[in-house]
Amino acid sequence: MANQTLKIVKIGGNVINNKTELHAFLKDFATLRGPKILVHGGGRKASEVSSTMGLKPKMINGRRVTDEATVEIVTMVYAGLLNKNITAKLQSFGCNAMGLSGADANCILAHKRIVKDIDYGFAGDVDAINSEIIDVLLKSNVTPVFCAITHDKKGQLLNTNADTIASEVAVGMSDLYQTELNFVFELKGVLENIDDKNSVITEINSEKYEQLVEKGIIADGMLPKMHNCFNSLEKGVHKVKIGDASLVKKTTKIYTTLSL
Amino acid sequence: MANQTLKIVKIGGNVINNKTELHAFLKDFATLRGPKILVHGGGRKASEVSSTMGLKPKMINGRRVTDEATVEIVTMVYAGLLNKNITAKLQSFGCNAMGLSGADANCILAHKRIVKDIDYGFAGDVDAINSEIIDVLLKSNVTPVFCAITHDKKGQLLNTNADTIASEVAVGMSDLYQTELNFVFELKGVLENIDDKNSVITEINSEKYEQLVEKGIIADGMLPKMHNCFNSLEKGVHKVKIGDASLVKKTTKIYTTLSL
Repeated sequence: MANQTLKIVKIGGNVINNKTELHAFLKDFATLRGPKILVHGGGRKASEVSSTMGLKPKMINGRRVTDEATVEIVTMVYAGLLNKNITAKLQSFGCNAMGLSGADANCILAHKRIVKDIDYGFAGDVDAINSEIIDVLLKSNVTPVFCAITHDKKGQLLNTNADTIASEVAVGMSDLYQTELNFVFELKGVLENIDDKNSVITEINSEKYEQLVEKGIIADGMLPKMHNCFNSLEKGVHKVKIGDASLVKKTTKIYTTLSL
Repeated sequence: MANQTLKIVKIGGNVINNKTELHAFLKDFATLRGPKILVHGGGRKASEVSSTMGLKPKMINGRRVTDEATVEIVTMVYAGLLNKNITAKLQSFGCNAMGLSGADANCILAHKRIVKDIDYGFAGDVDAINSEIIDVLLKSNVTPVFCAITHDKKGQLLNTNADTIASEVAVGMSDLYQTELNFVFELKGVLENIDDKNSVITEINSEKYEQLVEKGIIADGMLPKMHNCFNSLEKGVHKVKIGDASLVKKTTKIYTTLSL
């Protein structure tokens, strides 16, 4: 059983904000064979709706705080508007998508982030993945589409980072499947030279990763992202791929593969 | 198999608009034994969000038209905010709820209402229920929670009447289960005398129904509602109950039961 590959693909704002790109991506994703899961971030739409409704984002030390009004808006936009439109589009492309939040069938259980220095409000840190029900769906030929909303099983919805959802779902499914975690972002992969978009490093293992960090090639925003990827690999994820939207195309050749 | 009872319970604005009532209802619903499905309407929240966003409801001949902005808002409010909050609440009460729209796993396929005199915009009339996947969920001890959003499998989300969703789901599941359709509304049941809230007619069969229509006891808004109920019974639904939120309480005694 653990020999069957399960692909978990995460898309973020760069794909979601552009209607044409989203359409093209979903069309490609629909043709991926075998069991698969899509995880999507939020994009610009939540901020747009917030500002139309006269709300201002609450920030502490440059980080967004999820207050009660914000958790209402992200639930509307992520779990409602985006999740259902992505699902309906995938259905139109022949993919039997089912849009879900973490609250649905308790798929992703989380807890409100514990307050240390800063109270991030209704931000959720993941505790458990309900791999059993996700497996029931996959075996029924359903493609789960997760938005980045979780719950605490005490009735509270929580806002969780979409990268984290993708990693946790991949880790959680690794006992049942050979999991392949795909992060779609704005670049073709991890770059050797940040000024050369084509300088993709195609293979990175733990040893090479340490070298790249030492040389300062992996730095800044890429550092926590890569750290999380290797963390997922250590927790049982078979393979991580990082690249642009062409990752799900049959003809793609250029992306970064991470392995232990 | 068709001997097992499946309860389909529909709640509307009168329950949803009142936080305390909704909380109490969901707590009772969670304790209902055996397979069950919840269908919820929209309530006031969609209009509130619309007006906060500066949109005015579009009406033709006193009927609401679902234009593009409206379908976006009902998708946010019904499929996002309400559906996920109801699901999270049920989860907190120990009911393994899963919030769904008709687009999810193609559970409820519809088509855009055909334009005769009036173009109702993105209003959906139901074509088919995916009883197979709904049965997979029920057999996995999941309680589907449907909002009143459907899709056309061409990528378009549609706004559908919640009473219709409940009836169609009940009819669609009648090959597999002995279905019991429960409509929760503001009264204790069908009243003999509209001025006496306690004059509930407890049993109505087709024969009595015709008599009540003739006598003018069933009239106005109740007429199409009852017509739809008997239509569902003719299409295989085993029993229809109409009453207030106490319908799902173990101690309720007063409500109207419809049968052929």
